Amino acid sequence: MLTAQVPKTKEVQTSDCDVLIVGAGPAGYMAAAWLARHKGVKVRIVEKRDGKIFAGQADGLQCRTLEVLQSFGFADRAWKDANHMLEICFWNPDESGKGVVRTGRIPDMSPGLSRFQQIVLHQGWVEGYFKDNLKKYGGAQVEFSTMPESMEIDESKVDDNDAYPVKVVLRHLKEEASAPEQFGHEVLNGLFRSTNLVTTAEEDNALAEDTAKESTEIVNCKYVLGCDGAHSWVRRQLGFEMLGEHTDYVWGVLDIVPITDFPDIRNRCAIHSANSGSVMVIPREGALVRFYIQLSEVERDAEGRVNRAKITPEMILKACQKIMAPYTITYEEIQWFTAYQIGQRVVDDFSSHNRVFITGDAAHTHSPKAGQGMNTSMMDTYNLAWKVGAACQGILDRSALSTYGYERSAVAHDLINFDRKFAKLFSGKPATDAADEAGVSMEEFKKVFEKSHLFASGVSIDYKASNLIAKPAPETEDPHNPVKPAVVESKQSLATGIPVGQRFNSFQVMNQSDSRPWQFQDLMKSDSRWRVTVFAGDVRDAEQKARIEKLAAHLDKPDSFIHKYTPADRKRDGLFHVLTIHSAPRVEVELHDFPTALRPQHDYWSVYVDDMSHHEGHGHAYKNYGVDPKRGCLVISRPDQYVSLVCELEDTDLVEKFFAACLIPQKK
Amino acid sequence: MLTAQVPKTKEVQTSDCDVLIVGAGPAGYMAAAWLARHKGVKVRIVEKRDGKIFAGQADGLQCRTLEVLQSFGFADRAWKDANHMLEICFWNPDESGKGVVRTGRIPDMSPGLSRFQQIVLHQGWVEGYFKDNLKKYGGAQVEFSTMPESMEIDESKVDDNDAYPVKVVLRHLKEEASAPEQFGHEVLNGLFRSTNLVTTAEEDNALAEDTAKESTEIVNCKYVLGCDGAHSWVRRQLGFEMLGEHTDYVWGVLDIVPITDFPDIRNRCAIHSANSGSVMVIPREGALVRFYIQLSEVERDAEGRVNRAKITPEMILKACQKIMAPYTITYEEIQWFTAYQIGQRVVDDFSSHNRVFITGDAAHTHSPKAGQGMNTSMMDTYNLAWKVGAACQGILDRSALSTYGYERSAVAHDLINFDRKFAKLFSGKPATDAADEAGVSMEEFKKVFEKSHLFASGVSIDYKASNLIAKPAPETEDPHNPVKPAVVESKQSLATGIPVGQRFNSFQVMNQSDSRPWQFQDLMKSDSRWRVTVFAGDVRDAEQKARIEKLAAHLDKPDSFIHKYTPADRKRDGLFHVLTIHSAPRVEVELHDFPTALRPQHDYWSVYVDDMSHHEGHGHAYKNYGVDPKRGCLVISRPDQYVSLVCELEDTDLVEKFFAACLIPQKK
Repeated sequence: MLTAQVPKTKEVQTSDCDVLIVGAGPAGYMAAAWLARHKGVKVRIVEKRDGKIFAGQADGLQCRTLEVLQSFGFADRAWKDANHMLEICFWNPDESGKGVVRTGRIPDMSPGLSRFQQIVLHQGWVEGYFKDNLKKYGGAQVEFSTMPESMEIDESKVDDNDAYPVKVVLRHLKEEASAPEQFGHEVLNGLFRSTNLVTTAEEDNALAEDTAKESTEIVNCKYVLGCDGAHSWVRRQLGFEMLGEHTDYVWGVLDIVPITDFPDIRNRCAIHSANSGSVMVIPREGALVRFYIQLSEVERDAEGRVNRAKITPEMILKACQKIMAPYTITYEEIQWFTAYQIGQRVVDDFSSHNRVFITGDAAHTHSPKAGQGMNTSMMDTYNLAWKVGAACQGILDRSALSTYGYERSAVAHDLINFDRKFAKLFSGKPATDAADEAGVSMEEFKKVFEKSHLFASGVSIDYKASNLIAKPAPETEDPHNPVKPAVVESKQSLATGIPVGQRFNSFQVMNQSDSRPWQFQDLMKSDSRWRVTVFAGDVRDAEQKARIEKLAAHLDKPDSFIHKYTPADRKRDGLFHVLTIHSAPRVEVELHDFPTALRPQHDYWSVYVDDMSHHEGHGHAYKNYGVDPKRGCLVISRPDQYVSLVCELEDTDLVEKFFAACLIPQKK
Repeated sequence: MLTAQVPKTKEVQTSDCDVLIVGAGPAGYMAAAWLARHKGVKVRIVEKRDGKIFAGQADGLQCRTLEVLQSFGFADRAWKDANHMLEICFWNPDESGKGVVRTGRIPDMSPGLSRFQQIVLHQGWVEGYFKDNLKKYGGAQVEFSTMPESMEIDESKVDDNDAYPVKVVLRHLKEEASAPEQFGHEVLNGLFRSTNLVTTAEEDNALAEDTAKESTEIVNCKYVLGCDGAHSWVRRQLGFEMLGEHTDYVWGVLDIVPITDFPDIRNRCAIHSANSGSVMVIPREGALVRFYIQLSEVERDAEGRVNRAKITPEMILKACQKIMAPYTITYEEIQWFTAYQIGQRVVDDFSSHNRVFITGDAAHTHSPKAGQGMNTSMMDTYNLAWKVGAACQGILDRSALSTYGYERSAVAHDLINFDRKFAKLFSGKPATDAADEAGVSMEEFKKVFEKSHLFASGVSIDYKASNLIAKPAPETEDPHNPVKPAVVESKQSLATGIPVGQRFNSFQVMNQSDSRPWQFQDLMKSDSRWRVTVFAGDVRDAEQKARIEKLAAHLDKPDSFIHKYTPADRKRDGLFHVLTIHSAPRVEVELHDFPTALRPQHDYWSVYVDDMSHHEGHGHAYKNYGVDPKRGCLVISRPDQYVSLVCELEDTDLVEKFFAACLIPQKK
């Protein structure tokens, strides 16, 4: 058991809290926004910085992240504000070996993966959208200048759903915390936070010097989410280890408004020089550009550690100029710089007793160049927070919480493997010819890059079998796998384009009532509801219509899953959102032809059709989803849009069995 | 000269103001937002209501209006919040004559007219977007509870650009103005404002009773914009008359959440019953629906005037039920109701001395069913305010102000002609057969409706020749036409898809630097700049490249229009925005191939290409704009996106002559 140092004075305030989020970066904000959509769950989010100090400098938003932000209602804001990164150009040594030349260009993301493309936008904007969203939905506001001082888990209570087994002492700081150490530079920089250049002790000390304690309080929590970054305090309290490696490669980063004759300054570029290292160009908002620049010559101390004081924007720029010759580059304005050593590490466990969870940078660190950090952090808590929220509400069985670490550690390991391969290819010296085995083949680099799209987009994530994902377990399964097995098996062949375990992809469908075209994913908002998607097939056919009516009759039964698991106070918005897509011609069918279980009164937004729209073409949803347009099928998907179960329209017994294994029946 | 009753006390505050906007409805807000983009122009906007009383209930936004809101940066908000109205269904008497039956459906707007479709959204939302926009750009905030008391034009000064010839006494009201008379109803209604059911005197009296004067002030104005609605005080001060007619048809309006088995309740519907009159259905936000219902039985007094007290939601609903049989209709919730008599009237003059202008409902009234009112009002001031703003800035010659009335009175007359025809067809009884000449042929009605799309969308507006529109004057021109004639003639054949006088249509082009696809119109923001669009053709061709270089050399000359008319303090953002679209394959050209006149430093958003995008197809801009992809052409368009001049790339003499006739050379 961990020991909490609770002050013994009488004045210490004590309160209960369902979920305490530690850290207000992208992971923390996502958790807070998601929990805000879970009625009745009491959430607090604390951040040791004061509100004025900005922490992160991440900037890439991947396709899948945009899909998720869209489900919260604000991807359009990011899409409008951001730079769209659509093309990557490859630059390699020219024949003379003295300069670089463009050797190819490809779309930065393979067409067709998602309706969104990756964009580049400063982390601060993303956090701003979350702040607005929290306000809109009455979510927790960030308590700045507040940090945990101690944490204690009462193991005797961890299995009691109603207990508050995690006691955390919070320390409120005076609000005049100063800006972090700038290492003697006038230009803002991230040297202070650069994971592998700064130790945890250094970070703690820097903060401790700056901040005076004002008061403490005790919070008894059901759950604690550690969203507190690479030097995570929560992780250290649990004694969890970061496993992995770090390399010797040192990279500098510049955020500048460049003055240059380099023609691809507004495209993502991978530039390999013959002998001076590599540069990656990431165009950003306005005329700003981020450069990742390999630093071949950095001063090190006796233990091989980099001398941070010697890292200056000037020396980084000089390295950049050498690599990008014969093109010239200087800058009109510099906004920020930093340096880092590449390392890939993953935490050895993602949770303690399914009560305290490690997320985001606290759980995995890697190089920033692939633009995955902010995305993976947000997707961690997007996976976790609805489960925690539903457990707090007494709807989701606590056993399902094990799926968080099971699902996300697999992603984290894929990520660092990807990053390791990518970093090696990027930091290596280009091969001079086919015989140069030590060098990196530029053809191979381009191929790896092209293949990486699917992974980098985030849309290919495929969660394994559990009581939340009804599919066969992997053949070589870890015997210590903590999750409950799937109790039913999907009939995947009924919907070949809706793989169980993956996110429900989006195609256009049309509203039956008003002919408006919609991306189907836009109907699956992050509002904490499970989706029951009825592919109703050709409802003109009497036999098919009878199948639909039979399904509807089941849904209407007082002991169906819909009525069994929906809490009495949620009858109106429901725990289950039933959406129907039929395949008959729209004009040959009326809304009133569908049973009321599929179209509640005043709800004209539940029945859709796969047909040609007036102005925006045909979505070919049945074809794209791989569903038989005659017979249809039934799809259950989780509140986070991941597909749980595919089955026949009459397989209500499978559906009932599936939910019986993860949800808790509610009192009438 | 009009006489102002200026109080003779010493305390009266006196100030100057460039533009005083009277009335904060859609016309007033548009004027304020547009003027906010005109640097240095001092604007006030006053509204006699207090901020709590909401005035209008308009709800339709047409394609062209959305294009304009997009140019201000917020069409996306309306697009997201609104109901999209995509289909119109025709319902006519069934064979028995006892009920109605669906006889056809068509897209509510012909495909291809605009990238936007019409949407339905309460006026209050639109005004909200404008409020946010005014805040963002430091525009004038509405001064509520403030109304003009007198207005005096000093005719000796009207031609002096720097003078403030309009003296207005403003009266500040106590802020406790009560809500307008509800005519004994508990449900909110618009009977009070219903143009033809309430006289001007009644409206004035109603307000006078409610509001106590607190203080007055004197404002000396360069310009006054009358945006004060159908009973316009400004119009009455000028003694202008509304010319036209009104019919005997009385219609009721209900905004309700209906309970009904009518299958097309989420489509726009035109329902003609055999003997009970007509209904129009307009689905709105959420489950709300607006009904326009013909009232065949209304009580009238001795002079034939409608007895307003007898108009109740119940009697309107009853009429609706009769018309919509055999379908049943009742409601769960009623938000608002009103009644009106159809009339079509236009003011006899749109301005006095080009100093005081009449806009929006103050200039034209008609029936609300075609959804044109709010749109035409906003488009009036969108046409006017940039001209007034540029005149205040000393950039635009005051003669160009005459184009406002010239251009918009034509639109107003087209509108009331359209409305007259439409209203007659809609209020008439359906013909029982081909021999029934008194009845309305339902086939003709459908045809008129289909044809009306082009007009109703707002995209077909075609301004006639003037010193702002370089095209031939109409053959039968009014000899009293107040505008200066066009001094040059466009070479329209060079760009058959860019008709001079019409709005610059939008097609997709792709950014040369980063391959991002853009709707070309999105690059033509309402920021007060003129656009110089260079269709550069195939710049791989040496001869064509030489033509582009010659054009660029002209633009660089210190005495070119760009340098002659741009004020010294606007060098950075400029009065002219040069945009280039070339037709060579993107990968065969570099940004640096273009002369710097077409791509200022750090500006990567000026050069575009007509090519296939990575993810969003090909815009075929040259084909759609009807421009020769080899030779290109030059297009000048006004700050409000209307096309002024089409000519050859070497026709810089025409361009110079065009601007010399409307702009004022600036001091160096």
